[in-house]
Amino acid sequence: MTNMMKSAVLHGVKDIRIEAYQRPELLPGMVLLRNRTVGICGSDLHYYEQGRNGAFVPNRPFVLGHEFASEVAAVADDVDLVKVGDRVTANPARPCGFCEYCKAGRGNLCRKAIMLGSASTTPPTDGALAEFVMVRADQCHKLPDEIDDSLGAMIEPLAVVVHALKRAGSVAGKRVLVTGAGTIGLLAAITCRAFGAVPIAISDVVAARRAKAVELGVDAVLDPSAGDFGPQVKELAGDGFDLVFEASGAPRALQSAFDLVRPGGTILQVGMFGIDTIAIPADRIMAKEINYIGSMRYGNVFDEAIRLVAEGRVDVRPLINGVFKLDKSTEAFAFAGDKTLSFKVQIEI
Amino acid sequence: MTNMMKSAVLHGVKDIRIEAYQRPELLPGMVLLRNRTVGICGSDLHYYEQGRNGAFVPNRPFVLGHEFASEVAAVADDVDLVKVGDRVTANPARPCGFCEYCKAGRGNLCRKAIMLGSASTTPPTDGALAEFVMVRADQCHKLPDEIDDSLGAMIEPLAVVVHALKRAGSVAGKRVLVTGAGTIGLLAAITCRAFGAVPIAISDVVAARRAKAVELGVDAVLDPSAGDFGPQVKELAGDGFDLVFEASGAPRALQSAFDLVRPGGTILQVGMFGIDTIAIPADRIMAKEINYIGSMRYGNVFDEAIRLVAEGRVDVRPLINGVFKLDKSTEAFAFAGDKTLSFKVQIEI
Amino acid sequence: MTNMMKSAVLHGVKDIRIEAYQRPELLPGMVLLRNRTVGICGSDLHYYEQGRNGAFVPNRPFVLGHEFASEVAAVADDVDLVKVGDRVTANPARPCGFCEYCKAGRGNLCRKAIMLGSASTTPPTDGALAEFVMVRADQCHKLPDEIDDSLGAMIEPLAVVVHALKRAGSVAGKRVLVTGAGTIGLLAAITCRAFGAVPIAISDVVAARRAKAVELGVDAVLDPSAGDFGPQVKELAGDGFDLVFEASGAPRALQSAFDLVRPGGTILQVGMFGIDTIAIPADRIMAKEINYIGSMRYGNVFDEAIRLVAEGRVDVRPLINGVFKLDKSTEAFAFAGDKTLSFKVQIEI
Amino acid sequence: MTNMMKSAVLHGVKDIRIEAYQRPELLPGMVLLRNRTVGICGSDLHYYEQGRNGAFVPNRPFVLGHEFASEVAAVADDVDLVKVGDRVTANPARPCGFCEYCKAGRGNLCRKAIMLGSASTTPPTDGALAEFVMVRADQCHKLPDEIDDSLGAMIEPLAVVVHALKRAGSVAGKRVLVTGAGTIGLLAAITCRAFGAVPIAISDVVAARRAKAVELGVDAVLDPSAGDFGPQVKELAGDGFDLVFEASGAPRALQSAFDLVRPGGTILQVGMFGIDTIAIPADRIMAKEINYIGSMRYGNVFDEAIRLVAEGRVDVRPLINGVFKLDKSTEAFAFAGDKTLSFKVQIEI
Repeated sequence: MTNMMKSAVLHGVKDIRIEAYQRPELLPGMVLLRNRTVGICGSDLHYYEQGRNGAFVPNRPFVLGHEFASEVAAVADDVDLVKVGDRVTANPARPCGFCEYCKAGRGNLCRKAIMLGSASTTPPTDGALAEFVMVRADQCHKLPDEIDDSLGAMIEPLAVVVHALKRAGSVAGKRVLVTGAGTIGLLAAITCRAFGAVPIAISDVVAARRAKAVELGVDAVLDPSAGDFGPQVKELAGDGFDLVFEASGAPRALQSAFDLVRPGGTILQVGMFGIDTIAIPADRIMAKEINYIGSMRYGNVFDEAIRLVAEGRVDVRPLINGVFKLDKSTEAFAFAGDKTLSFKVQIEI
Repeated sequence: MTNMMKSAVLHGVKDIRIEAYQRPELLPGMVLLRNRTVGICGSDLHYYEQGRNGAFVPNRPFVLGHEFASEVAAVADDVDLVKVGDRVTANPARPCGFCEYCKAGRGNLCRKAIMLGSASTTPPTDGALAEFVMVRADQCHKLPDEIDDSLGAMIEPLAVVVHALKRAGSVAGKRVLVTGAGTIGLLAAITCRAFGAVPIAISDVVAARRAKAVELGVDAVLDPSAGDFGPQVKELAGDGFDLVFEASGAPRALQSAFDLVRPGGTILQVGMFGIDTIAIPADRIMAKEINYIGSMRYGNVFDEAIRLVAEGRVDVRPLINGVFKLDKSTEAFAFAGDKTLSFKVQIEI
Repeated sequence: MTNMMKSAVLHGVKDIRIEAYQRPELLPGMVLLRNRTVGICGSDLHYYEQGRNGAFVPNRPFVLGHEFASEVAAVADDVDLVKVGDRVTANPARPCGFCEYCKAGRGNLCRKAIMLGSASTTPPTDGALAEFVMVRADQCHKLPDEIDDSLGAMIEPLAVVVHALKRAGSVAGKRVLVTGAGTIGLLAAITCRAFGAVPIAISDVVAARRAKAVELGVDAVLDPSAGDFGPQVKELAGDGFDLVFEASGAPRALQSAFDLVRPGGTILQVGMFGIDTIAIPADRIMAKEINYIGSMRYGNVFDEAIRLVAEGRVDVRPLINGVFKLDKSTEAFAFAGDKTLSFKVQIEI
Repeated sequence: MTNMMKSAVLHGVKDIRIEAYQRPELLPGMVLLRNRTVGICGSDLHYYEQGRNGAFVPNRPFVLGHEFASEVAAVADDVDLVKVGDRVTANPARPCGFCEYCKAGRGNLCRKAIMLGSASTTPPTDGALAEFVMVRADQCHKLPDEIDDSLGAMIEPLAVVVHALKRAGSVAGKRVLVTGAGTIGLLAAITCRAFGAVPIAISDVVAARRAKAVELGVDAVLDPSAGDFGPQVKELAGDGFDLVFEASGAPRALQSAFDLVRPGGTILQVGMFGIDTIAIPADRIMAKEINYIGSMRYGNVFDEAIRLVAEGRVDVRPLINGVFKLDKSTEAFAFAGDKTLSFKVQIEI
């Protein structure tokens, strides 16, 4: 191998260039992956459209992409967890393993964690929209034959949902409302179904998204722009939903959640608002004994997510509705940016 | 109505007589149910075959039956939770509502609880194998149209499983072994599937039961009489199962569970052994940090169980493989006693 | 006994009159208590000072008082839980016992619950600032000899704290900040100490309250009006507190809690704000995986609270700093209303 | 420094020799500690008295000792968590940090963990009964000034108890029985007290141990050899104890625990039995919904244990009743072996 590779490099707002880029040099404990399929995430879009992701501003051009399926191309001498030729996806987060958060099983809160395809560190860490990417061996999770590359690149967003639902406790037999029918919201709905929630409702202002939810078998769809859905909720869930999975990042969705959640129930914050503060009815948290809890990325749930897909418990394929070649990355990002058309967009390397 | 009703009265070992029996007199707070379909449970069989159920020995003839679907025939003046004509199933346990266990949400541990169709109290409390049975209004749970009488009489055994799984925490994404493929074991397997467990294995020495499990879509079946299944377990679950749902009441099944459960995993005791003590490897509970926990009947999970069946999450119908008329109760109990042939046997009133 | 009794009746804003009032008539299942000592709570003060408690507006004069120690004066024929002459305190909330919340062990969320000394029902339910009050037998909790009447009337506010801490999980070994050093905040601090929290800090803008906290052995006091206490928090708790017990009902206290809580930590809402909405940094709930949870009154924790006081684990006596006779109720309420002087004010009947 | 050091080397049964031994060579990521005070644990005694610890048999002479306080003597170039001169104790277990157990926060179940002073690996790993010992940097936990070397060497056994109590959930307000009044049992009792348990009883057949428990302020002591203590338990705990902390490793203690634990309560297995199986009443686990759970060593609770001791919440000093010089190691082990005389025995290096 030469020491250069073909990559999609983000140079600035809406400026992705396919160019030769330095190939990572294999370090001890690490693995070099030859990438196959890479999904575009909302945070990738933020970098693409705004040149930043909230507070994270890259100080140099870098490579996006943290949802991916790859093949192991090379391993350092001290690695035995994977071997050349293995098909894998990788957890894009690399926690330190030894701080108090890591030792408590909350590596997603590790302050030393490094995130692929992100400017959360300075300089930014390159991601998977390139021929190769380097990860620590333990970040790799093998893909069984049942999971092709396209499905393999869906494991990361599914892991977001699986981790969030762990935070909320069991949803089995529970009444669930998902607010926001984008990729994460729809994944949440089908995963809640796979985990025994009943009934499952989803709300979104975009008709195409509600239609997708119906296609995926969600029990009920709600349109927040159509006026009060109190009566509909009463019929579905009586006093309210046991769990509101907030996936929209829309302040109004959160605010209504405090009405729609059942006394003693849980509101699970997964969407990001991108604004400093939101007005909430705090006294209701007390009077209704609500649990309002946040979920951040994922802990070590990749193997679970893989089993769920491989054994047919969660069918993520209908969410993929756009596949592009690496050379068409700009077109891929443009399509991904149209929220009335696209769900999950993927790029083949 | 006259004050007599047709009933199947247990007079002694294998001595059930269809006869006229005193109809219950409606008391304040209570509801009189006209019974439609009644399932036969393992504890009913114990009374029938041995004249007792473990320590519970009836001091007079009584009426069995605590899994049932009925219609509300009359309600006391102070009752507003249900009305005449409602189709319901009932939680056969009637906890006091005011002791420390009830107030802690553990009414199944209430020491003053009364159990229908049981000699846990003296005299015994009559059950539902009769034209009528009386319950407290809050014991009733309405059945939607999707649930016919036969399915309605399956809610109680399903509630056993739903409650037990609550005790074990979430099974979503977890590797589960069920030991014992009788009615409860098979219900556990299909409910674990509905709750997202993956994979799900079940073990039983009876080939017909293993065949039933395969028919119901369990991922793997294990035959304890076929020698060491360590390699099979290794392939299915690596270091072991996250949860072993012990539904067999067989000492050997429990003993092997301590090997088969994963470090940090849970063994859930639902089956009853009927013997004083069992030898277990207690040091392994410590070294592997196992949770060995028991589950007793059900708390307030009937509405959840009803939703799971009504919305098609759990299909209990394939477990019903014998339906008899009340006059044929003796034949029904004989068939139910043949564990190689029968799963759930029901009697139509 | 005549059918009248001496009572402190609230007729309007700052209008409490000592007058003859109808004595409750003993109903089945109920107990008549002869009251000894009654504490004044913040909600009593709201009724006294504003004629209402938030949304609860009485439609007739009524009797306040829900923190009390009494003697059983009479019991209905069907009562066997207590007997005449027993010294008791009572849980002022009377949940129904049979709804889904009650059966789940969350009687504090019961929609049919009746609350003594409150206008949460219409007409309001009379409380204990009278010679007699009537409660259901199971509301009574016996007081051992170690607990005199004054301590007995402190069990209810302690129960608020014990219940709230149950909602938060174990505080043993955890770093805790209490915001607000009024009665509930100070009780929270000493109870956290009794439950193993370390260190325990408390914040309040009132110097006299901070001084009381120091007297009670709190590890550190913070003055929110003295500028940034970031460095002090860093030294006490590193990345932040595992638990923030919000007892102030001050929006600024809640807002700062999102900074001061450790990643993965919990904010426990016990104080009431009395305003519709509060602006909070919702994205931080997600990014730091905060649990923001509410606590409402108490479940069945009175016996625990009694044991904690009787066995010397929690010393509540230093919080009582004003004792008045019933005839001086107006003076008692005036003193209780001065938050720089008073902690717990009690009235002897 | 030379490359040799003075050590207490175990050559066989009751054969400890003070001799020159190879000093560990500092590796990357590691820290060399100069040991000050080392406690003798039950597992050390097993190696000393029987030449083995259960299944762990050393294949060469090695150095015992895993409870210790030390000073940092040297650090590898890549270490920044501690610096030369720091006073520390160390977690003697070194989990890998990257396996599924470690990532789930259960490093104590890590299959690659290395344990100081233990033959759980082959060859055995040398411990701290020597001038120096080497640990990974993250194993170190700094000791504040309030904790002298003797207390510092008590952090490890306290961590066993703190971890076990985490497994059991909160003990605040709970009724606790500790079975076995050796060092771990007594530490459990005083820690339960610091964590708000009330009342706390302890049982032991040895009078001197019961006397020690009384001295430490335990609420009640029980003598299993004095006949039925049912009435005493009834008075202390009504229906039974919420938690039985099994610290004896005596089969009879475990067996009685199933009677003494309250319905819905927990039996926590911390003691080791050293025999293959124990007969338990398994049906009672089901009928009483008991949680029988094991606890193995400790996760990351050392900093909590340090705070508890430093801030005076747990006073471990009265348990230390024998201090010897390194040259007198044989005498120290002999004294430690007399369970009627010794609690915690320590050796000063």
